[in-house]
Amino acid sequence: MEMSRPLDTLNQARNKRVIAELKNGKQFVGVLKAFDIHINTVLDDAEEMVDGESKRKLGTVFLRGDTIILITLAD
Amino acid sequence: MEMSRPLDTLNQARNKRVIAELKNGKQFVGVLKAFDIHINTVLDDAEEMVDGESKRKLGTVFLRGDTIILITLAD
Amino acid sequence: MEMSRPLDTLNQARNKRVIAELKNGKQFVGVLKAFDIHINTVLDDAEEMVDGESKRKLGTVFLRGDTIILITLAD
Amino acid sequence: MEMSRPLDTLNQARNKRVIAELKNGKQFVGVLKAFDIHINTVLDDAEEMVDGESKRKLGTVFLRGDTIILITLAD
Amino acid sequence: MEMSRPLDTLNQARNKRVIAELKNGKQFVGVLKAFDIHINTVLDDAEEMVDGESKRKLGTVFLRGDTIILITLAD
Amino acid sequence: MEMSRPLDTLNQARNKRVIAELKNGKQFVGVLKAFDIHINTVLDDAEEMVDGESKRKLGTVFLRGDTIILITLAD
Amino acid sequence: MEMSRPLDTLNQARNKRVIAELKNGKQFVGVLKAFDIHINTVLDDAEEMVDGESKRKLGTVFLRGDTIILITLAD
Repeated sequence: MEMSRPLDTLNQARNKRVIAELKNGKQFVGVLKAFDIHINTVLDDAEEMVDGESKRKLGTVFLRGDTIILITLAD
Repeated sequence: MEMSRPLDTLNQARNKRVIAELKNGKQFVGVLKAFDIHINTVLDDAEEMVDGESKRKLGTVFLRGDTIILITLAD
Repeated sequence: MEMSRPLDTLNQARNKRVIAELKNGKQFVGVLKAFDIHINTVLDDAEEMVDGESKRKLGTVFLRGDTIILITLAD
Repeated sequence: MEMSRPLDTLNQARNKRVIAELKNGKQFVGVLKAFDIHINTVLDDAEEMVDGESKRKLGTVFLRGDTIILITLAD
Repeated sequence: MEMSRPLDTLNQARNKRVIAELKNGKQFVGVLKAFDIHINTVLDDAEEMVDGESKRKLGTVFLRGDTIILITLAD
Repeated sequence: MEMSRPLDTLNQARNKRVIAELKNGKQFVGVLKAFDIHINTVLDDAEEMVDGESKRKLGTVFLRGDTIILITLAD
Repeated sequence: MEMSRPLDTLNQARNKRVIAELKNGKQFVGVLKAFDIHINTVLDDAEEMVDGESKRKLGTVFLRGDTIILITLAD
């Protein structure tokens, strides 16, 4: 288990635009500014997306880690 | 992982008006007075919002952290 | 993070009448006598409320912390 | 936080008849014999109650703590 | 809190026939052979019961503790 | 509590064909190759079963422990 | 319990194409690049699959461990 760790991948995504999907089905897009070992996550310039369209702009948003299913680059 | 941590973002929001969204779909708006590592959170001047309208005024409210999905500035 | 902590707020509510809302939608009103870091909570003179009306009187009730969504002053 | 703790309240209820309500909506009445910090609880002479009527007698029952919502005296 | 602990009660039920009820509503009857602090439990000669009738025989079954609601003697 | 522990039972099932039932109702049959204290489990030659029939063959499968309800010998 | 551990199996799957199934029923296929003891998992070249067909391509995706049900080789 000498290889890369999952949080390294999140670290490489810092300051990049990511999609975070939550357990309640909501999707947020924003610039990944911070995360911790619980996957508590902060996005800047965040928007809630519904069917690929922006539903509302949130600015900076703190997402509690245990609500997150996945994080991926928005590209 | 030398960069900012998610709780720093919450700390910067102290004494500002924030929105806290809960797992049960409820939304509370109030002045962020306190939080801890579990994201247990205290809002002052809090109101429960439904569809952008105040449903009830709560004064100071303690929210148990594991019910919280997100916290963002209300502006 | 030198400021007040969420449990300080609960501590200030001791011996005051509070509302505790649970994840199952139930609401209990009573005098806050005790709580711990898990938010296990004891109310005295407690009543279960439905739509603002007392449904049943419970006397002293122990509420397991992980069922609690919020605690606020009853007024 | 020098005051009483929630488990003290449970301790005072030992050997008394209590109601334990579970997350699945079930209600058990019995003599509180034991509990621990997880709120794992043992009731003696326990009965499952439905709408205030005894549905079945269980004798001694072990209830896993994380299923419990509240414990209160049965009178 | 010098008195008996909940796991003592389970210990007294070892090698006796017990009913274990799970969060998914299923009920298993069998001889209690082992348990641990998570309430992971092993039953021998276990049967899954539906409405008081044996639905299937399982022999020895390991039940993960967090699925268990209650354990009581089958008599 | 000097007697056998639940994980001993799992250990005796190593290299034997077991059934693992999950919280989502799915059932997997395979040879138990590994488990840990979280009940993370690896099955070899695994198949997903529906109503006693093989729905798909999976080869080696890692099951996260907190999804598991029970493990028993397949016979 | 001297034998292999579940995470050894995941380790052997590194750099291979795996299927990860989530609690919400979603299925992701990708190259396993990293995981940790929480089963937080990173897949490269990931795709979300629905009924065996690719629904969307995600590139690198971080999956929070507690959403994962199973991981198995994609073939």
